[in-house]
Amino acid sequence: MYLSKIRVTLRKSILDPQGKAVEHAIGSLGLLGVGEVRMGKYIELKVDSRNETAARNTTEEVCKKLLANPVMEDYHFEIEKLP
Amino acid sequence: MYLSKIRVTLRKSILDPQGKAVEHAIGSLGLLGVGEVRMGKYIELKVDSRNETAARNTTEEVCKKLLANPVMEDYHFEIEKLP
Repeated sequence: MYLSKIRVTLRKSILDPQGKAVEHAIGSLGLLGVGEVRMGKYIELKVDSRNETAARNTTEEVCKKLLANPVMEDYHFEIEKLP
Repeated sequence: MYLSKIRVTLRKSILDPQGKAVEHAIGSLGLLGVGEVRMGKYIELKVDSRNETAARNTTEEVCKKLLANPVMEDYHFEIEKLP
């Protein structure tokens, strides 16, 4: 059993109004020096496969077909072996 | 300048209908062996502070006061020094 930890982020060239809103809210809290807030998605899932390569391939497919919009988003993931 | 990479996840005891929906969609795609999908948020932000401890404290405050709901969510973050 493997655990995939997936981060889906907006591409640099895409505006992020949600991030901007959070940035303003942080300013209103009085916290200084925080900027360039970018919001993304974080997904964890378990993959039951015989080896890490198979788990990696399955995760790759899930990301490509379902979790990330390839026009606007990038994804990165790590695979962890569960005991 | 530091980069904070923050993951906000739902607590284990909280039901995650969005994760369940994604799980079903993965099944419909014909991908086998994927389960326990949990959806969360991923946030990146830059902190301009004099050392890593200060950056860590600022990030901690942003998470506590703004990004995570302490009743339902946990957060984890890493700090990276930018060149």
